[in-house]
Amino acid sequence: MSISFDVQRTAEGGGRRAALTLPHGVVETPVFMPVGTAASVKAVEQGVLEKIGPENRGAQIILANTYHLYLRPGHELIARAGGVHRFMSWERPMLTDSGGFQVFSLSSLRKVTQDGVEFRSHLDGSKHFFSPEHSMDVQIALGADIAMVFDECVEHPATYERTRDSMGLTHAWAQRSKDHFELHKHRVPWHEALGGATQSLFGIVQGGMYVDLRKESADRLVEMDFPGYAIGGLAVGEPREVTREMIARTLEWLPKDKPRYVMGVGYPDEIEEYAKMGVDMMDCVLPTRAGRHGLVFARDADGVVVRMNIKRKEYAEDPGPIDASCGCMVCARYSRAYLRHLFVSGEPLGLTLNSVHNLHFYLATMERVRADIAGTARSHSTL
Amino acid sequence: MSISFDVQRTAEGGGRRAALTLPHGVVETPVFMPVGTAASVKAVEQGVLEKIGPENRGAQIILANTYHLYLRPGHELIARAGGVHRFMSWERPMLTDSGGFQVFSLSSLRKVTQDGVEFRSHLDGSKHFFSPEHSMDVQIALGADIAMVFDECVEHPATYERTRDSMGLTHAWAQRSKDHFELHKHRVPWHEALGGATQSLFGIVQGGMYVDLRKESADRLVEMDFPGYAIGGLAVGEPREVTREMIARTLEWLPKDKPRYVMGVGYPDEIEEYAKMGVDMMDCVLPTRAGRHGLVFARDADGVVVRMNIKRKEYAEDPGPIDASCGCMVCARYSRAYLRHLFVSGEPLGLTLNSVHNLHFYLATMERVRADIAGTARSHSTL
Repeated sequence: MSISFDVQRTAEGGGRRAALTLPHGVVETPVFMPVGTAASVKAVEQGVLEKIGPENRGAQIILANTYHLYLRPGHELIARAGGVHRFMSWERPMLTDSGGFQVFSLSSLRKVTQDGVEFRSHLDGSKHFFSPEHSMDVQIALGADIAMVFDECVEHPATYERTRDSMGLTHAWAQRSKDHFELHKHRVPWHEALGGATQSLFGIVQGGMYVDLRKESADRLVEMDFPGYAIGGLAVGEPREVTREMIARTLEWLPKDKPRYVMGVGYPDEIEEYAKMGVDMMDCVLPTRAGRHGLVFARDADGVVVRMNIKRKEYAEDPGPIDASCGCMVCARYSRAYLRHLFVSGEPLGLTLNSVHNLHFYLATMERVRADIAGTARSHSTL
Repeated sequence: MSISFDVQRTAEGGGRRAALTLPHGVVETPVFMPVGTAASVKAVEQGVLEKIGPENRGAQIILANTYHLYLRPGHELIARAGGVHRFMSWERPMLTDSGGFQVFSLSSLRKVTQDGVEFRSHLDGSKHFFSPEHSMDVQIALGADIAMVFDECVEHPATYERTRDSMGLTHAWAQRSKDHFELHKHRVPWHEALGGATQSLFGIVQGGMYVDLRKESADRLVEMDFPGYAIGGLAVGEPREVTREMIARTLEWLPKDKPRYVMGVGYPDEIEEYAKMGVDMMDCVLPTRAGRHGLVFARDADGVVVRMNIKRKEYAEDPGPIDASCGCMVCARYSRAYLRHLFVSGEPLGLTLNSVHNLHFYLATMERVRADIAGTARSHSTL
């Protein structure tokens, strides 16, 4: 089976609990997906990733990044290795983004035409061309369970006209992505090994911060009939209430029987909020990136998220864990004092431990939301 | 019990198998001790360190560094935390060096007198004074199972006169270290918790590359009656056959019923060679430092050690593990191609995986030597 989405329960606020079945396994949603940009969730070993989160169940699905893997080590190399699952030894579900976001955010020079984007690599300045068709070829070669259409992510702020034009390009590219994907999806490295299963291609709703454009984009993509939809172009600098409104409105126009994914969010309280509104999937580099900068998350006695800067002097002799209610391997074993010492001393173990704690925190947050929706609400403990 | 050393079997070549009992556990010798300079074996989590090596038995004993921990986070802070074991959450045996080596190798300015050494911190240029008494106070506060006398490590090459004078200073400092240690050893943070046990202080034989000075140094230290002896001042740039000769000769003059420790060696074939000559303990940063530079160890079909530079292009599509005969978690799961990709991409996971493999390789090498000595020789597999 390539994909199925079984909604088991929908709560009053719109949040729903579902099972997303993919070629490499079943994902319980709503789900937070750790980001493994270059086929590694930074500083966290796959065996650890399989065990973090409540009851050591581990991350259910992770992301890898098409732009980065295309440049290094190259999608064809990964295809020859059997696909990104085998290449990095991760046998659970995966998703690749389309590469579009990094083409825009990281490339030193780029020229956008109707056909695609010419850009220079951020690594060595070499010239490359990404079209919807090329993004599909790269993603099929990588072989994640879910691929994303190639889109242009408009900057913020952007005028109505600029946003509308960009959206139009994105719709044309979505159709071209789909057409090319359908023709070539059987080339995924594990096609035969997994009984003829293929990847699933998700559409991406754009439209910036304009409600009417968001509606037009959602309608247009639903017409194209994708097995899942992302809400893109958010968390690009707009106020949080705008993000929230765009998500809330767009959710109304997307089919209820398909997974809905908000890309690139967010803080722990945001992922909880959006999941309760009915978002099924989210990803963000924040837990690992924050961890590498010494920022770790905890909850106070009322369950409110607290951000701790572990390098602060006040933790130098603190024998307690990051979060006494946390069930992660870091909180079970290491003190704030030791974590501060590692960070201040530049010890690589500090990056790992902070990242593991933060990822656990995110996974535990989503576990609690899932339990809430399923009607077996638990306390605010981070499990 | 503070220390006991029970030699169970001595092989023809001089290698012996023994049990070294320390306050935090029993160490089977000959043993290789991973180095955790700043209370972290770089890039390797303690839970992983407890499981690497043959049959997941893990590292038996690790080292921490007095100079580094004195400067950051400070020995008094660690004493208040309950000692370095508790501070870093490592409940197995540990050893601290005396700080002398780094005072000489890392400090930007230093003035050696009979009394001790004044130096400037390599971190912030602040001025500090290390004497034998101060080194003992710091090491007692840290609370490793084994402490080392404060010594001067002479540079190589050094004239006979310079080496003799330095050795004389080292002997005076050894006596002062011992006197101060005996007066204050009850202050170790776990003294009462472990039934009145104390650390053990090892002497360090110096004498550079001069056999008669080595003999004088060994005799003088044996007179002082330490519970164990290190052979110091080697692996400082001299040819390997000189190292070997200095070790072989010095071993003859040291008591057979006490542990003998060669500091700061070496490559896998060296640790094997010295263990078979009768060295009981060795430590080296090489497995982790090499790992962080992409150098990993393997054995060819004849059991000969091979050094692989994992970043080489020839491994880009190599689906095999570093060493097909290796039983470590890295070789069980990850390909050379993936390890190369991680290293070339600057992914922190690469440092971790290379270090874990190399540490396993060292521990497996010593496990094989122990089995050989015990008369149950195994193949050249790295286990």
